[in-house]
Amino acid sequence: MGIGSVHPLAAGSGAGSADFTAALAERRRWVYDYLLDWPGADAFRPADIHDGLLSYVRHAGKGLRPCLLLLSCGAAGGDEKQALPAAAAVEIYHIWTLVHDDIIDRDDTRRGHPTVHSEYGRRARDERSLSDVEAAHYGTAVAILAGDLQQSWAYALLTDLAARGVEGETILKLVRRMATELTPQLLEGEMLDVQFAHVDADSLTEQEVISMLSKKTAALTEYAAWAGATIGLAGQLDSSGLAEKLGRFAYLCGTAFQLQDDILGLTADEGILGKAVGADLREGKRTLVLYRALANATPDERRLLLSVVGRADASAEEIRGVLSIIGSTRAIAQISQMAHNYVIQAIELLSHVPESKYRTLLEQFAKFVLARSH
Amino acid sequence: MGIGSVHPLAAGSGAGSADFTAALAERRRWVYDYLLDWPGADAFRPADIHDGLLSYVRHAGKGLRPCLLLLSCGAAGGDEKQALPAAAAVEIYHIWTLVHDDIIDRDDTRRGHPTVHSEYGRRARDERSLSDVEAAHYGTAVAILAGDLQQSWAYALLTDLAARGVEGETILKLVRRMATELTPQLLEGEMLDVQFAHVDADSLTEQEVISMLSKKTAALTEYAAWAGATIGLAGQLDSSGLAEKLGRFAYLCGTAFQLQDDILGLTADEGILGKAVGADLREGKRTLVLYRALANATPDERRLLLSVVGRADASAEEIRGVLSIIGSTRAIAQISQMAHNYVIQAIELLSHVPESKYRTLLEQFAKFVLARSH
Repeated sequence: MGIGSVHPLAAGSGAGSADFTAALAERRRWVYDYLLDWPGADAFRPADIHDGLLSYVRHAGKGLRPCLLLLSCGAAGGDEKQALPAAAAVEIYHIWTLVHDDIIDRDDTRRGHPTVHSEYGRRARDERSLSDVEAAHYGTAVAILAGDLQQSWAYALLTDLAARGVEGETILKLVRRMATELTPQLLEGEMLDVQFAHVDADSLTEQEVISMLSKKTAALTEYAAWAGATIGLAGQLDSSGLAEKLGRFAYLCGTAFQLQDDILGLTADEGILGKAVGADLREGKRTLVLYRALANATPDERRLLLSVVGRADASAEEIRGVLSIIGSTRAIAQISQMAHNYVIQAIELLSHVPESKYRTLLEQFAKFVLARSH
Repeated sequence: MGIGSVHPLAAGSGAGSADFTAALAERRRWVYDYLLDWPGADAFRPADIHDGLLSYVRHAGKGLRPCLLLLSCGAAGGDEKQALPAAAAVEIYHIWTLVHDDIIDRDDTRRGHPTVHSEYGRRARDERSLSDVEAAHYGTAVAILAGDLQQSWAYALLTDLAARGVEGETILKLVRRMATELTPQLLEGEMLDVQFAHVDADSLTEQEVISMLSKKTAALTEYAAWAGATIGLAGQLDSSGLAEKLGRFAYLCGTAFQLQDDILGLTADEGILGKAVGADLREGKRTLVLYRALANATPDERRLLLSVVGRADASAEEIRGVLSIIGSTRAIAQISQMAHNYVIQAIELLSHVPESKYRTLLEQFAKFVLARSH
């Protein structure tokens, strides 16, 4: 991306980065151990549901959202271990949205492994001798139900907080905000994403695209940080609005994260990214990079972009042509800069947070969003 | 069915039935008014999600589950109006499972109206000019996301109980049981239903089929009655196990309800039922009636049944042939009798419930399950 060399914010190296990487890895282990040892998982039956539901857990994600939650709990003066069930809840919450999103986006791979619907579709064909159409439908059914059960698992995990001494009133606040604010926002973002792929790119404003992707991604990071801080405050009066400020910090980081994600979808090494470069283009996803490229392109380039984007059958050569045009429009550099600006705003908000090792790690978190390669 | 004439239990007439019908209609109105006036629904966006999500609410169901919840609250000594948000929660919970089930079962109509996925597929074809395949996929995306949002709405509604003075600890109990017991059971039932349609009918026992359909239907009626009684008890020690007994009562009624539902799918008037008679047969649903018919059939009849059931393209004549065989095996009469026996067991449990108008209405509820025509 080249931004790292012009501004210290994006630097992915140095002692701070190593601290954060270790802190992230440690918290990811706590969260995934908690999820994989969860006693209630015995009730997830039959085998296809149980295994389908756990498959994305077994292929652990980066764990950024639970890390945000735990660090925000610490930054608000709480004990991270008390908040662990909520951290596990936001990770599972994230996972259920992926399982359903993969059906909707017709993605076959995720994190380098088959998606739930494609894996169980394949198994139904191979093991149940179903026709291709019936097998695909069976795979979709498994993924719908597994995602549904994961959503309920997220609520179950929030109620686990009671066993760690979190007050009932605080838990109910977390449940209510998840149900009444987070989910409507996130699913609005998902639906708009689907709708935008079917409308003329000319009819969308850059602001509409940013709003859509913030809902898809930043709503959950905001919730995670707010929830962690709310647990950390343990019912104390939050006169300085710490929970909301940490939520806003995480919202800005989440938006930057999504912009970066769209850039990586066009530039990353496929082996590291775990999905095909160009998949977003073939699906016709209205990423901000694409929007900016269209805005910056010459009329000829624009026609070529519009003739390829959104065509599932676009050839590798056509995708390379589109990537070359996107490169020449400087769209990627400009959207990188925009992500960068969000992170600067986010870090400024941390000045309202009392100094601690958690605040330092949150600052490193914000920088990590830009520096990541997958 | 003919059972009504041999046993007073199944009688759908008389003063008791009129009382219950009025009580059901009144409670259904409370619940649907609460849902349709719910202030948080403004957050359900964009229009396709909002309207798709509310479509099954606008075409109100029978409201049996919320009625069970409210009557159980009253039977446990509580104020029904205090429990109203929980009654709305179980109705929406039921609705989200229908929205996803309709995708999985590929049903085009529900309650005489198009299902969410088929309606939004049609609109995408007509209004967004998408191809048939793309339009159907768009309809599925709307229905997946609308159902997801409805699930979270159910949790939101449970948290509304706080505004009616229900203690936080009680609300958390309701949230936890919904997430850790109800949902795994119900979705296990859904998944088994899908799987059973793809295995040889010979390989299933009657007990496996009953267990599947109880999970699909009775888990939610059990939850509804238990939740109502738990709210009604208002944190008092439940030394007589009233909440669990009312839950068991409702579980038995729910199982009888599902058996009756499968019978109605074969015998009811299509106009009243709101879906095509024979749809369950074409889908290959492993209803208990079908299982019993196979067990009772002659080898020739059996071959004919197996050659038609599960074939989406079965002709109207073939379906009539299957219905005639099912009739001659007495499978419907036998399964009616089984439903009848469940209701008798359920009513016996009511002897543990203090006498009140609510107990009387619950008894009438149990009888109504058998007497209904749709």
